[in-house]
Amino acid sequence: MSRLVAPGELGVVNIGTLRTEAGAIIPDARIAYRRWGKLHGLDSGRTNIILVEHSLTSGPDVDEWWPGLIGPGLALDTNKYCVVCTNSIGGCHGSTGPSSPHPEGGYWGSRFPGISIRDQVTAEIAFLDALGIEGVHAVIGGSMGGARALEWAAMYPERLSAAAIIAVSARASAWQIGIQAAQIDAIEGDPHWHGGNYYGTGQQPREGLATARRIAHLTYRGELELDERFGVEAQEGENPLGPVRDPQQRFAIESYLDYQARKLTSRFDAGSYVTLTDALNRHNIGRGRGGLNRALATIQVPCFVVGVDTDILYPYHQQEHLSRNLGNVLGMARISSPVGHDAFLAEFRQMNRIIRRFITLASAATLPEPGSHFS
Amino acid sequence: MSRLVAPGELGVVNIGTLRTEAGAIIPDARIAYRRWGKLHGLDSGRTNIILVEHSLTSGPDVDEWWPGLIGPGLALDTNKYCVVCTNSIGGCHGSTGPSSPHPEGGYWGSRFPGISIRDQVTAEIAFLDALGIEGVHAVIGGSMGGARALEWAAMYPERLSAAAIIAVSARASAWQIGIQAAQIDAIEGDPHWHGGNYYGTGQQPREGLATARRIAHLTYRGELELDERFGVEAQEGENPLGPVRDPQQRFAIESYLDYQARKLTSRFDAGSYVTLTDALNRHNIGRGRGGLNRALATIQVPCFVVGVDTDILYPYHQQEHLSRNLGNVLGMARISSPVGHDAFLAEFRQMNRIIRRFITLASAATLPEPGSHFS
Repeated sequence: MSRLVAPGELGVVNIGTLRTEAGAIIPDARIAYRRWGKLHGLDSGRTNIILVEHSLTSGPDVDEWWPGLIGPGLALDTNKYCVVCTNSIGGCHGSTGPSSPHPEGGYWGSRFPGISIRDQVTAEIAFLDALGIEGVHAVIGGSMGGARALEWAAMYPERLSAAAIIAVSARASAWQIGIQAAQIDAIEGDPHWHGGNYYGTGQQPREGLATARRIAHLTYRGELELDERFGVEAQEGENPLGPVRDPQQRFAIESYLDYQARKLTSRFDAGSYVTLTDALNRHNIGRGRGGLNRALATIQVPCFVVGVDTDILYPYHQQEHLSRNLGNVLGMARISSPVGHDAFLAEFRQMNRIIRRFITLASAATLPEPGSHFS
Repeated sequence: MSRLVAPGELGVVNIGTLRTEAGAIIPDARIAYRRWGKLHGLDSGRTNIILVEHSLTSGPDVDEWWPGLIGPGLALDTNKYCVVCTNSIGGCHGSTGPSSPHPEGGYWGSRFPGISIRDQVTAEIAFLDALGIEGVHAVIGGSMGGARALEWAAMYPERLSAAAIIAVSARASAWQIGIQAAQIDAIEGDPHWHGGNYYGTGQQPREGLATARRIAHLTYRGELELDERFGVEAQEGENPLGPVRDPQQRFAIESYLDYQARKLTSRFDAGSYVTLTDALNRHNIGRGRGGLNRALATIQVPCFVVGVDTDILYPYHQQEHLSRNLGNVLGMARISSPVGHDAFLAEFRQMNRIIRRFITLASAATLPEPGSHFS
């Protein structure tokens, strides 16, 4: 086992050539990651790693998007566990993605292949292999991260003890594909997209990405929560009820969505947004495994399923479906919140309880005693 | 009282100058309409008219979008009632809208004012005035039509006996404004939009309108219904799971949404779409009336409230809110359907029962005996 990057810092691991599920090749692929807490490993290869899987537009900064949940004595207790979070292949937080240099020159751009959730897991396994780490204690993820956690349990059951699958489904739904395709269309329709090859042109499809984010954000937030915050209020100093319609005169909710859009375009790559959204559209635990419920039934890794009662994007019935059909259900939790899908990022008090409960249950499975130490 | 257009045919009535709620002027405004059944009027001015209010992209062709519900002996019984449906001001089915010629030359285009639901009702009252019709028996509408029916009851209680308010809310919600603004943005961002003045250029913002419709359609249909129909199926002959993402390789749901989009762009004007969507954003029964619930409480017209259990766009709690706060609730009905918002257009068996029940209840209020006849 090789040494990990210093706690909290960004490390990058070369995983060599990645062959995707659909048969494309990514040579010299790199996976970026952060970790917190000391790694305890045994000769058997099992470790005290809790692998956290990020959602679509977040990255390996777990301490930023789950503040208060990771640290000494906290739910993700860095006194006991080594918490690792990798940036997904296709992402833009250090791992190889469309904005990365291509080995033959220029940027990947439109040459970057379509990837699936399974490809994300394959890359993560290659990352662990490169570090000489055989197994992890648990995999936890929400939204796209939940899809990754679920595929982990299906693909590499021998390499994890338990999985927490949060606010996701067994496969993409038609509604999700529809609303996600609308976001991809908005980006691909931006004249600055240049067929995916805008890198190095000095242009970026910011408008398209902003449109995508506005739409997406409405699927991330609960309808009642948004209404209680914004209702039909006009943005301060603007009048959306004037005698002639004027796009500069906005309702408060429009201004809020514009703000969310600007926040994203300043920090996230449009190519990665398309690639990872496409990966969500490809999510299907049943593909090539005899269908959805047969695939779920064969999963023997203990799984903990979490949903949000007001989730528009991944309605709670999808998590009920998971819990009814998974082969080994450790438990289930329902986040009660007006926030909608994003509740797993926002309801810290409930998430604290849920993660603690998951880890308690997961640790009923044998956790290796601290043996040789790596840090 | 003047004569109405022949049954089923399209008539147009000049209503003169319309002054909008926000203070704009539309001179020489025209309202197109259809009617079915004989008009019975009394000297008092009351009539047997049932005024049906269309939704955003439908028009006065009630027989097309409520087939089986209108005709002799049917729920909207043309043996007993004179069913009238006007095209909304701002629309593109014969009434004055952005695509209409402007009195000073050219087309209205960007000169067409922002209108509210109240302006739609004001125009309809002017339409009735022009025909010498004082009162109607009932007003029925779903979605945008429901908003119009609600404003009718608030604005002109002396001119109707009852209202059926279907699949709508007391005001726009922040979520609705957000998703509707995204649709408007898509159209206004189309280079063929030309700031709203594309009429006569030979260009039309078809792509923008198509994008708007794809998004809108996902708010009109139930998530479970779409999933049961399309799931993660690929469109026949296409492969959305290929090694490189290709917009031409679609999931079946994408193809379906493209089809819905093409159907709309071939029959509906983008300018009217923007104007009427903006009117939905302005919907607020409480504006200038002491707030939402005070406004609802003062409505003494008997109202029948209908909602759909799976409506994403106008969730059922919004109709529950109406029924709790309206001053005079005749009854309430819940359409049970996987279809979502569009259930009021799709679930004919339930709608048949609901409209019959509404009319029975509404007719408990005095319906004038047939007196002087107009046709």
